[in-house]
Amino acid sequence: MADNVMVDYEILKSFCVEVYRKCGITPEDAELAAAVLTSADLRGIASHGVARLRRYVNGLKTGLMLPDAESRILRETGSTLVVDAAGGMGAPISVRTMAQIIDKAETNGAAFGCVCNSNHFGIAGFYAQMAAENDMIGIAMTNTAALGVPTFGRHVMFGTNPLAFCAPAGEEKSFLLDMSTTVVSRGKIEVYAACGKALPHNWAVDRSGRSATDAGKILDDMFHRYGGGILPLGGEGELFGGYKGYGLAVMVDILCAVLCGAPFGPDICDTEFSSARVSHFFGAIKIDSFRSPGEFRKDMDKMLRQLRDSEPADGCERVYVAGQKEYENEERNRRCGVPLALTTYDNLLSIAAEYQLAPMPILNI
Amino acid sequence: MADNVMVDYEILKSFCVEVYRKCGITPEDAELAAAVLTSADLRGIASHGVARLRRYVNGLKTGLMLPDAESRILRETGSTLVVDAAGGMGAPISVRTMAQIIDKAETNGAAFGCVCNSNHFGIAGFYAQMAAENDMIGIAMTNTAALGVPTFGRHVMFGTNPLAFCAPAGEEKSFLLDMSTTVVSRGKIEVYAACGKALPHNWAVDRSGRSATDAGKILDDMFHRYGGGILPLGGEGELFGGYKGYGLAVMVDILCAVLCGAPFGPDICDTEFSSARVSHFFGAIKIDSFRSPGEFRKDMDKMLRQLRDSEPADGCERVYVAGQKEYENEERNRRCGVPLALTTYDNLLSIAAEYQLAPMPILNI
Repeated sequence: MADNVMVDYEILKSFCVEVYRKCGITPEDAELAAAVLTSADLRGIASHGVARLRRYVNGLKTGLMLPDAESRILRETGSTLVVDAAGGMGAPISVRTMAQIIDKAETNGAAFGCVCNSNHFGIAGFYAQMAAENDMIGIAMTNTAALGVPTFGRHVMFGTNPLAFCAPAGEEKSFLLDMSTTVVSRGKIEVYAACGKALPHNWAVDRSGRSATDAGKILDDMFHRYGGGILPLGGEGELFGGYKGYGLAVMVDILCAVLCGAPFGPDICDTEFSSARVSHFFGAIKIDSFRSPGEFRKDMDKMLRQLRDSEPADGCERVYVAGQKEYENEERNRRCGVPLALTTYDNLLSIAAEYQLAPMPILNI
Repeated sequence: MADNVMVDYEILKSFCVEVYRKCGITPEDAELAAAVLTSADLRGIASHGVARLRRYVNGLKTGLMLPDAESRILRETGSTLVVDAAGGMGAPISVRTMAQIIDKAETNGAAFGCVCNSNHFGIAGFYAQMAAENDMIGIAMTNTAALGVPTFGRHVMFGTNPLAFCAPAGEEKSFLLDMSTTVVSRGKIEVYAACGKALPHNWAVDRSGRSATDAGKILDDMFHRYGGGILPLGGEGELFGGYKGYGLAVMVDILCAVLCGAPFGPDICDTEFSSARVSHFFGAIKIDSFRSPGEFRKDMDKMLRQLRDSEPADGCERVYVAGQKEYENEERNRRCGVPLALTTYDNLLSIAAEYQLAPMPILNI
């Protein structure tokens, strides 16, 4: 990876804490926001990591994200919570809301919550995993700016709307599914556009609503809402189940937004400088209400091993389980350093200069 | 549709009630089982309707489904329920369990339950919809005999594992997503095999784990577990997100089976005569805990209309929302009669003869 540099994880995280503090975020929130952001780099999900720090900083500068937002609870029962993030950063309020939901689920067996008027919350899996660490099944979702085109449609009508699901295991790592409900996220299209590479068919459609391969043109058309966008998981039409991904994306929008009265669908737009206000949905289901968590974990180990040990297809090396690649990345990156794209590193340098912070040292390897 | 005959819906349902009663099912359960089974035909989901009656009858005859099973509650809290179906029919115990979960959610805000040691429960959407009729969001899932191959794998390791999600609207019909988490269900492969038609690539793999098109061979290899099976939603490899469908299928297996200690993955096998014992997961989330149900329904109307009214792609007529096609089928089939494939009708005739029941009249149209 010649275009990458390696940096130490703890230094990267401390750097983000300092940047957030310079932007006016409280120490506690800066820690939470940095932990969520850099966990993405740690896991190898660079699209959701410090590559976004510039957008966060811009958001905080332009007032789209409010550093001193005072979130408030709009509605609360023993098993539910609706929180208004009041335009603050997405990650800290999401960590706190998930923690409250876990407390409620501990007492109540299951609990759910929405956060509205929030901002990009990083990787959904982070929050789902918090529940798994407490002997619960965890769920996290968010809507995003509209980028997805419905089956048979041509206009963006929903976001890439990721959902995460986490179930704890015993000796194995938790099962951690974290997926956008579109075929790909915008980040992947941007990578193809940057290389001038043609998109595979069944990823995106153009203004006419038919499968298209010009990544740059699609990004531009999507941004200006001329028509065209990313296809739902399952691709174009119905032959490969595209209506399923479309349905899942709308499901996420219902749970995140309609359930708490937040904007949804095409009403969510990114600007040139920052991401749109979005809303999230979190849930936790206590395993002990169904079965002894120890027995559950033992069966999870059996399931995950069966899957991982199943014979690979010709030409394939391994069968993975959800989360496995990211755990392997995390283990390696903690030890050997976190790889950052050169452009990302340069971006961090410019942020460092802006806030008179020491530039992050590059690891020699 | 020259290969179809039309029958009256009420007569079809009564016929099923009578057949079930002849098989030793109690009047109440026979009504529930017939309602769920024929609702599939009504909605145009023929694969899950009376085309399966012969398999149900065989299951009841051979003892794989027990007509007089005494289900019992294994664990219960204010918000959760684990039920042992004791090998009885899937539909009646599922209707009763969902009704109990709805009651619990009414008091508690949200409730979930598993049913283990059960049989084929028909269409998952039926149960999710029960919650929506009570101002709740409804969830229903089931595992099935292993037919799905993990990403990069070659052996069946999970079922077609459908999930259903239903959210009520106001003037519009409920949003009702009901989808298998594999690209297609086995029924579709059987249709291709019956016509000797080649499968599209990205539906299934052969013994080597690579995309294959010979429907008959795949069905045989899958049944005998020689290798090969149906691909997860998103298709082969990772390019189109196949790991997402794979993850969703495993998620369904965790919620249905691992959560209540039931068999999962490749341990679930169909026999030649009937379907495997399976387990289900149900959930209900009370909307009023988050927001006034009236306002929720109004926003659902807005969302569904926006989607439905969005401009179709070139060459496409309409953009649908989840459940819409099935509602339109239901409206028409209630009025004009339910279409049955000739082979299905013949099957019903032979069941009628076996139990000395009057054959169902064909509608003249």
